[in-house]
Amino acid sequence: MKYKKLFNASFAALAASVALPGFHAEAVAKTVPVTIHAVEKDVAYDNKGSTYHAWTFGGVVPGPVVRVTEGDTVEFTLVNEESNKNSHSMDFHAARVDVMTDFDSVKPGETKKFTFTADNPGVFFYHCGSDPMIQHIARGMYGVIIVDPKDENALPKADREYVLIQAEHYENPDDKTAMMKNQWSNAVFNGGVFKYDPVHDPEATRWLQAKPGERVRIYFVNAGPNEFSSLHPIAGIWENVYPSGNPKNVQYALQSYTIGPGDAATLDLISPVAGANAIVDHAMNHALTGAIAVIMFSDDADPEAGKGDNILVR
Amino acid sequence: MKYKKLFNASFAALAASVALPGFHAEAVAKTVPVTIHAVEKDVAYDNKGSTYHAWTFGGVVPGPVVRVTEGDTVEFTLVNEESNKNSHSMDFHAARVDVMTDFDSVKPGETKKFTFTADNPGVFFYHCGSDPMIQHIARGMYGVIIVDPKDENALPKADREYVLIQAEHYENPDDKTAMMKNQWSNAVFNGGVFKYDPVHDPEATRWLQAKPGERVRIYFVNAGPNEFSSLHPIAGIWENVYPSGNPKNVQYALQSYTIGPGDAATLDLISPVAGANAIVDHAMNHALTGAIAVIMFSDDADPEAGKGDNILVR
Amino acid sequence: MKYKKLFNASFAALAASVALPGFHAEAVAKTVPVTIHAVEKDVAYDNKGSTYHAWTFGGVVPGPVVRVTEGDTVEFTLVNEESNKNSHSMDFHAARVDVMTDFDSVKPGETKKFTFTADNPGVFFYHCGSDPMIQHIARGMYGVIIVDPKDENALPKADREYVLIQAEHYENPDDKTAMMKNQWSNAVFNGGVFKYDPVHDPEATRWLQAKPGERVRIYFVNAGPNEFSSLHPIAGIWENVYPSGNPKNVQYALQSYTIGPGDAATLDLISPVAGANAIVDHAMNHALTGAIAVIMFSDDADPEAGKGDNILVR
Repeated sequence: MKYKKLFNASFAALAASVALPGFHAEAVAKTVPVTIHAVEKDVAYDNKGSTYHAWTFGGVVPGPVVRVTEGDTVEFTLVNEESNKNSHSMDFHAARVDVMTDFDSVKPGETKKFTFTADNPGVFFYHCGSDPMIQHIARGMYGVIIVDPKDENALPKADREYVLIQAEHYENPDDKTAMMKNQWSNAVFNGGVFKYDPVHDPEATRWLQAKPGERVRIYFVNAGPNEFSSLHPIAGIWENVYPSGNPKNVQYALQSYTIGPGDAATLDLISPVAGANAIVDHAMNHALTGAIAVIMFSDDADPEAGKGDNILVR
Repeated sequence: MKYKKLFNASFAALAASVALPGFHAEAVAKTVPVTIHAVEKDVAYDNKGSTYHAWTFGGVVPGPVVRVTEGDTVEFTLVNEESNKNSHSMDFHAARVDVMTDFDSVKPGETKKFTFTADNPGVFFYHCGSDPMIQHIARGMYGVIIVDPKDENALPKADREYVLIQAEHYENPDDKTAMMKNQWSNAVFNGGVFKYDPVHDPEATRWLQAKPGERVRIYFVNAGPNEFSSLHPIAGIWENVYPSGNPKNVQYALQSYTIGPGDAATLDLISPVAGANAIVDHAMNHALTGAIAVIMFSDDADPEAGKGDNILVR
Repeated sequence: MKYKKLFNASFAALAASVALPGFHAEAVAKTVPVTIHAVEKDVAYDNKGSTYHAWTFGGVVPGPVVRVTEGDTVEFTLVNEESNKNSHSMDFHAARVDVMTDFDSVKPGETKKFTFTADNPGVFFYHCGSDPMIQHIARGMYGVIIVDPKDENALPKADREYVLIQAEHYENPDDKTAMMKNQWSNAVFNGGVFKYDPVHDPEATRWLQAKPGERVRIYFVNAGPNEFSSLHPIAGIWENVYPSGNPKNVQYALQSYTIGPGDAATLDLISPVAGANAIVDHAMNHALTGAIAVIMFSDDADPEAGKGDNILVR
């Protein structure tokens, strides 16, 4: 039963997502209910399974992928679980609302609702904004909301899609002073040190995959809390980069792109050959403490990888 | 009399500014005399009125807003007050001149003049470039020059305008070593810790204001001296962003935008609803040491706020 | 004989470069052999001639300029000299290949070959990617590959061209911990502290030069390994900025532009007057530890400066 509660968010998101293909051609604005539970629990941050006491959305770091279409209305409910010890809140970067009321904190056992229309297509950060915000982000309360353009031809068709969220991991999640002094221990993608990098960590069992020639779309969020990212695909070139994921902001053939903390971008990658690229934050002290994701290009790529519910590799 | 001398700059800027509406349609290039006095004096850096020994342009931090129109000729005079202890200089990012002569330092009691044409529309940093430059900026010698496009339709019409200048504040303004090691104590907007944020500082009595639906134009400068800024309006989305303020560089619906030290941008914000946004550097250790500005959207917004001489809230 | 081996790379690059003018109008794709030797040797890092034990491409820091035309095939050979103590490799940001095989390391005495087509015009970083990559970059294994557009009208014609590569210099090149903690001692352009800045270092004997009115094209690479750069021409304005050097990504009249570690851009500068500009990373602790390059604008500018083989001032 708890399981079900925790994953309401995923289900809602999945529903919205699954509904997309059929709706795309006409892009009829929908009302999408999204419920996410704030859950304080131990979560693994490396491939060995070492854990820290995380604060999460939906019991996972990053939180569930929320996906809607431009023009949709999101009816959002945050449930702060009774067993939690801290107040929490939700800040969707896709929403234009009132920071004071809509993004306000609720205590354990309480519920917060607000509604917004997803006016702009793109990829947007979401995170907890409760005090001290730096700690709520650093402990894992972050995720992505993708707002697909209502015009389904606004972007070139992607063959695969992946979500990558960069963040700094702190050895001691209680040490707010270390956070303010920016003394992180690792830079991570999707909550894990070298999570998708079997080259730097033999215990890594996951990576991204696609076929040569396919257009792979990366929905990238820099959760921070403090560091900037210079995102680069080693042995590849970003075919296109869309700041904030908006189709109007297209750039061409970039080797790297700077994404500040609290920012996001959509980056397309095509490999003309079989082999691998390694997506990194090219700031070397970020890459070499964990911010590397290998993407394998092979004709044998799993046909389900990077599709539907598999865009965030858990 | 001293008062008058100090604010010559403001008067000149005001004159140029006030003259704009009438001239805009035809955009006849003008010659604009601008005089600014370098003044070393104690200045408040928080809402309680705590002071430090600042080095300033015009006796205020940031210095006076200089505003001209594309094509204008600026006849600039820097007066280094006799009572000062240090050499000072002026570096306008809007000028294409000779760094050796035009931006050279003058001793206390001396005067420096140079002339430039404002060839490019946009928003540009100005600062003291005297040795050691890092300290002259960190102590407060910075401001903005706005160059309005000669084509008054080059940008969408703004209903309100505000200047925000981000900088790092150092606890000990004599400690150049701390500056070179980047050991700042606070990130500030317009010289004050949480200057426009009554949420994080109950002693804050100022904030920005506008009506729902109005286009609010932020002229943003990152004075540094060292840190990058990832500027985000919490609960809002930048409607448009113009790197260096140039109308040709338009971007759409960005959640955040990276502005390096010594850079500037124009960012437009529209709230469809009443309520508040909070403009922050989303690098959390910057935001939570002072770089947050609340903007209230209400039909009761002061009709004079964000207009004419009120675009930099003192 | 060693001399000849070391500079094979330069010769190959020169050949490609020299061949360009004749080929440009038709832009016939060529096959360009490029051989670069990895050489571990002492190299000067300041104007006094102080040295450190560098790891280099071609015996120089930065490595030789490689220049080809969009569509060309590069047949690359890395020779890891037998006298070296470490494995080395080559990562061209202009290549779309397999990170695992093509960019793999080879031991001293071994040779590595791979081939790629320069599909995208622009300016791209190259560097050693051997473990630990942060140290191989910090010790000097970096350079630039310029891919000229096959359409010779894709960019405005440049009258002069210069390469500037920014990097962090570490006092102790053996101290990998300092590198991971980002405790660099200097930010440098083209491997030297204040290399082109006689204002901040009286021992500097080199600077960039051009005539007033000429379009000067800067091919800028930020080698890192860690720091972001906010590149600004003091007393000037970037006429155009092309992220990753791609003609499609043009921006206008920028005062500064952020280039992350592992990124590159092409930036054009025109001075309407005689005098000087000073190109700096406007992060003051970067500029004032060495990242300043003076460019003199004079009708007496050396007619050979910034042309052909002189675009990287050694």
